[in-house]
Amino acid sequence: MSQGDKLPYSTADRCWLRYSHQALRTGMELLSSIVVQHSSAVMDSALQEMVYGIKEMRGAEPDICRDPASASGSFVRLAILDEALPEAWTQAGQIQGLNEEGYGIHAVQQDGAVQLYVVGRTDRGVLYGVFHLLRLLQSGADLAALHVLEQPRNRLRMLNHWDNMDGSIERGYAGNSIFFEEGRFVRDDSRIRDYARMLASIGINSVSINNVNVHRTETLLITPEFLPDVARVADIFRSYGITTYLSINYASPITIGDLNTADPLDDRVRAWWKERASDIYSYIPDFGGFVVKADSEHRPGPFTYNRTHAEGANMLGEALRPYGGVVIWRCFVYNCLQDWRDRKTDRARAAYDHFKPLDGQFLENVILQIKNGPMDFQVREAVSPLLGAMPKTNQMLEFQITQEYTGQQKHLCYLVPQWKEILDFDTYTTGEGATVKRAVSGELYRYAHSGITAVVNVGSDDNWTGHTLAQANLYGYGRLTWNPDLTEEEITSEWIHLTFGASADIHRELGAMLAESWRIYESYTAPLGVGWMVNPGHHYGPNVDGYEYSVWGTYHYADCHGIGVNRTVKDGTGYTAQYFPENADLYESLDACPDELLLFFHHVPYTHVLRSGKTVIQHIYDSHFEGVEKVQELILRWSKLEGQMDHERYTGVMSRLEHQLEHAKEWRDVINTYFYRKSGIPDQQGRTIY
Amino acid sequence: MSQGDKLPYSTADRCWLRYSHQALRTGMELLSSIVVQHSSAVMDSALQEMVYGIKEMRGAEPDICRDPASASGSFVRLAILDEALPEAWTQAGQIQGLNEEGYGIHAVQQDGAVQLYVVGRTDRGVLYGVFHLLRLLQSGADLAALHVLEQPRNRLRMLNHWDNMDGSIERGYAGNSIFFEEGRFVRDDSRIRDYARMLASIGINSVSINNVNVHRTETLLITPEFLPDVARVADIFRSYGITTYLSINYASPITIGDLNTADPLDDRVRAWWKERASDIYSYIPDFGGFVVKADSEHRPGPFTYNRTHAEGANMLGEALRPYGGVVIWRCFVYNCLQDWRDRKTDRARAAYDHFKPLDGQFLENVILQIKNGPMDFQVREAVSPLLGAMPKTNQMLEFQITQEYTGQQKHLCYLVPQWKEILDFDTYTTGEGATVKRAVSGELYRYAHSGITAVVNVGSDDNWTGHTLAQANLYGYGRLTWNPDLTEEEITSEWIHLTFGASADIHRELGAMLAESWRIYESYTAPLGVGWMVNPGHHYGPNVDGYEYSVWGTYHYADCHGIGVNRTVKDGTGYTAQYFPENADLYESLDACPDELLLFFHHVPYTHVLRSGKTVIQHIYDSHFEGVEKVQELILRWSKLEGQMDHERYTGVMSRLEHQLEHAKEWRDVINTYFYRKSGIPDQQGRTIY
Repeated sequence: MSQGDKLPYSTADRCWLRYSHQALRTGMELLSSIVVQHSSAVMDSALQEMVYGIKEMRGAEPDICRDPASASGSFVRLAILDEALPEAWTQAGQIQGLNEEGYGIHAVQQDGAVQLYVVGRTDRGVLYGVFHLLRLLQSGADLAALHVLEQPRNRLRMLNHWDNMDGSIERGYAGNSIFFEEGRFVRDDSRIRDYARMLASIGINSVSINNVNVHRTETLLITPEFLPDVARVADIFRSYGITTYLSINYASPITIGDLNTADPLDDRVRAWWKERASDIYSYIPDFGGFVVKADSEHRPGPFTYNRTHAEGANMLGEALRPYGGVVIWRCFVYNCLQDWRDRKTDRARAAYDHFKPLDGQFLENVILQIKNGPMDFQVREAVSPLLGAMPKTNQMLEFQITQEYTGQQKHLCYLVPQWKEILDFDTYTTGEGATVKRAVSGELYRYAHSGITAVVNVGSDDNWTGHTLAQANLYGYGRLTWNPDLTEEEITSEWIHLTFGASADIHRELGAMLAESWRIYESYTAPLGVGWMVNPGHHYGPNVDGYEYSVWGTYHYADCHGIGVNRTVKDGTGYTAQYFPENADLYESLDACPDELLLFFHHVPYTHVLRSGKTVIQHIYDSHFEGVEKVQELILRWSKLEGQMDHERYTGVMSRLEHQLEHAKEWRDVINTYFYRKSGIPDQQGRTIY
Repeated sequence: MSQGDKLPYSTADRCWLRYSHQALRTGMELLSSIVVQHSSAVMDSALQEMVYGIKEMRGAEPDICRDPASASGSFVRLAILDEALPEAWTQAGQIQGLNEEGYGIHAVQQDGAVQLYVVGRTDRGVLYGVFHLLRLLQSGADLAALHVLEQPRNRLRMLNHWDNMDGSIERGYAGNSIFFEEGRFVRDDSRIRDYARMLASIGINSVSINNVNVHRTETLLITPEFLPDVARVADIFRSYGITTYLSINYASPITIGDLNTADPLDDRVRAWWKERASDIYSYIPDFGGFVVKADSEHRPGPFTYNRTHAEGANMLGEALRPYGGVVIWRCFVYNCLQDWRDRKTDRARAAYDHFKPLDGQFLENVILQIKNGPMDFQVREAVSPLLGAMPKTNQMLEFQITQEYTGQQKHLCYLVPQWKEILDFDTYTTGEGATVKRAVSGELYRYAHSGITAVVNVGSDDNWTGHTLAQANLYGYGRLTWNPDLTEEEITSEWIHLTFGASADIHRELGAMLAESWRIYESYTAPLGVGWMVNPGHHYGPNVDGYEYSVWGTYHYADCHGIGVNRTVKDGTGYTAQYFPENADLYESLDACPDELLLFFHHVPYTHVLRSGKTVIQHIYDSHFEGVEKVQELILRWSKLEGQMDHERYTGVMSRLEHQLEHAKEWRDVINTYFYRKSGIPDQQGRTIY
């Protein structure tokens, strides 16, 4: 049996792991032999991937040589640093300084042949190195000249699944769960295995598999009823270097234990969780830990017992500490029964107000998970002021890959540009250059644990993400968590190459489509930092007042004179004071505040003149008309690519773009009509508003 | 075994069939003996009800004498006209001129004793007479002086259930279905039997048991899979003089037959329906017929095949005709995928535009069922101009007892005042006095079939209607269909007496509460005939723009200047022309149009001065503030009744009133804030608007 055939890949879309025959340019002889000595689950995966990739590209499997001493001529060698490596490698591959997941790829000229060394500090490094090498092969790189040194910038590079055990996915737009169906785990693992490969190929090393809203059945995941299943999934992930986490129900001691309290200071509760930890680690020795949504949107938490979130989190931390597990504690805590009449309470303030005072009170194996913005994954909002603001507390950044508020994978919305802006945002917490990416990577404060996580966008759809082009968001997310300094263009170019090949047409047209798509979506939906103008509940489609009179703390206060939320210190909610002075001053100032966040920070008349020179109302009209025109351009660009890819992907994307156009018109007309009817101010260009 | 014990009454609330011991004033000796000769299912019910009622009131069962010749002294005799009746009756009881369901109740002095005759033209008449007599007994009437002649004004006095076989009820606010659960019929019939009694006691003679939106399982109700169950329900109803109907799926020949069409002119389709009719009548010889929602809100219908609704309905009529069945064809047909941008299309026009041209084309056993207003059961809308406008086509009026748009049985909203206005509305179709009640009773045009139907408000809740006081709506509906000339006060007084007894306090306070409740609900929800300012989908709670940008044809067009739908001929949708001139002129005129319908017919500035002397905007503010104050008065009135009834009913109603108050404040603040923000016009009284 060959190595490549062992892989039980499903028939689902291979996304960026396509290994086209055409891609291979050089190094054919080099790829005819693989030398590998060490064996482990991860190392075997690395070898399998190498064999599979070569077979797909060359049309023939390489030989495998298990004894480095007997290897000669051209070959690729996969090795960990512990192995005895030849002099030529030692001169070229200085990876000792790298972190645990780092690796080097070096071509060595030996006896007239090229020998390629992929060497990791650990076997995980080798796996990442193999995927890197495969990426280079797909891009037609010259193997004889390869000299690569790589290590990930973030220790935790995570994905959160919001999958429920009935098979549904909260905020999922690409089918059902790949883990669960009908109240239990799926029987066929093949999609999970595919998924693990895909994630490893972009550097993801941590996955929580169930929804942060933990319902009745899911509460049992930490019990022997389901732990054998969790362990089975963890085995698959482990072989690709990925650690498994579970979301837990804070009220578990009541819900599934026989206690009448979940008070974190109650000895019985503490003992109960310690028993659960012991159970879990008996099944999964390298279990990652818990993701916890507590005291948030009707979820139970320590507030019930008048305990702080530090007390709440530390109790779990204590239980997991003996095993090396961590508690990932979400900061999405706010009053979700707000009175819309009350303009003083500001949901944007909530995370900072709740958690900042607790800095230094959390155990070393507790990490605070902070959404990128203070509200909730809007198409545009300010960066959370809590990021970087707690020197003595581990922090993680949370993105949302699944397009809840950004078109639900029916609209094209490439989120890498948004994430880049956020990662590059300067918090000034330690002076200039204290960017978000440096805060969450642990560079600023030397956190014991830190990194980036995101709500993932995949499901059981054949193409994983509903919209084929939404695959780019998952790819880009993984690459950015590995290296947040990668440019948007580098990521886009990589992804297009791996997914659609080298065609210059595709790179030009699709590159432009992706680059513009987020701002296009913003332009026909949410002007100037206003959020929440969506239909309540499912969050799809325009509804300007959809959340205006609700309990959710999500208002725009539009009246016949103006619109926006006054979050200034001067005469608003005082939210701007949560930033360090450089940003606080910027946002506090009506003149200095960036246009795209103006209505997030200020309530202004429709006639207020933006930095762009336009009035607010004219900006609303213009951006909505232009947004639709831009979607028409997207369609035009895509139409040029007909015949340059398989029919299925072409038509699948085109049909979504056509829906996007119709829906963009609905957005345009509803938003423009709403504001025209409310302001009474006509469009300067006299276009049709209803 | 005594007669009374045979009744398998459930433990649910007895509503207005309480038979309090205290109520009985006179005629004790009269009630010690019942004479009854004739026997039939309905006659036996009449006897049982008489025995049960007497036993409850007297504390002892009456004797039953089956041989009138041997009866002497005081007694109550139940008889049909066919029987040999004594001279004394013949002189007093002239019921020959009454219709089939008519009856007389007459006290006769004989040999020094009082003998009370309840005689019907048929056994159904006797049953109605018995309930009438029981009502009189409960009210403490003097039996020795009774002389009653009664007959129903409407032949069809119907209820439509929107019950689904999964047990849910579309627009139900009082628990689950009493007919269905988990995809089949309930096993315990006792609630159905209770229900049949209650309906017979108020004169209802027709019931359709399943939702007009006929889903997959319900489509099978007309097949042998479920017909034995339908027959079982029909048996229960029949014994109380009630005929059973089913809602059918127009696409049944495709859905459950093996045809690929439901074209009403296709011979195979016609044959298929004839076979179904034959099946149905083999199980239920007196089956009433079909209720049909076709080409309405995504339901299939004849439009699919380019056939008219007359062709569609007549095909079914032909199938049912041999058995005496009827087709009740709903006129709720409109474009439910309207573009909100299009102001020319007017949903209010739809029923008239669709059906008026078809007058004279329907078979004699087809009846058009027409909602009271042209939109959909709003708290206030114009009366449908189709009512009375088709001299050659049978018509029925459709009300909605279930409080979909009128507070969902959480708010108190007594609908008899609304129904009275509608029934008394003069259509002028045959000149002055051509009221809706005379149209649908068949007085105007001598219809072969006609009457009134309504979507019912009951469910499996112990008190049947969720809100105890919502029982009054079911009671009042039944009484009005029997006699639309009953005054609101008569009905209210009867219902209070039967349900809560003779207490003057209760009559005063509860009487006032009921009398005002509809206008109170109107005042804090929908001003001046504007509808649809509700949350989409479930229709509970305020959402001014909830349907403004939707596909449903339900708009108010509010902008910063004004609000309302221009339905005039002059420069609007032309809807007013559907009325006869007296009404058309009234509604067309901005000055003459009644205030409460102003915004239904006209788009006006907020500063427009109403006939009341107030501006539109000030009316909105005032009515919403006053509405909340009026709810506070409702609570005050109810609180005075503590201790005058059982604790359960008192507290149940009070808790709903308290919710109503909170929710009325939400309505007030949302509506006022919306219009203040939109108009910029402050409240003259400077009250708090947000």
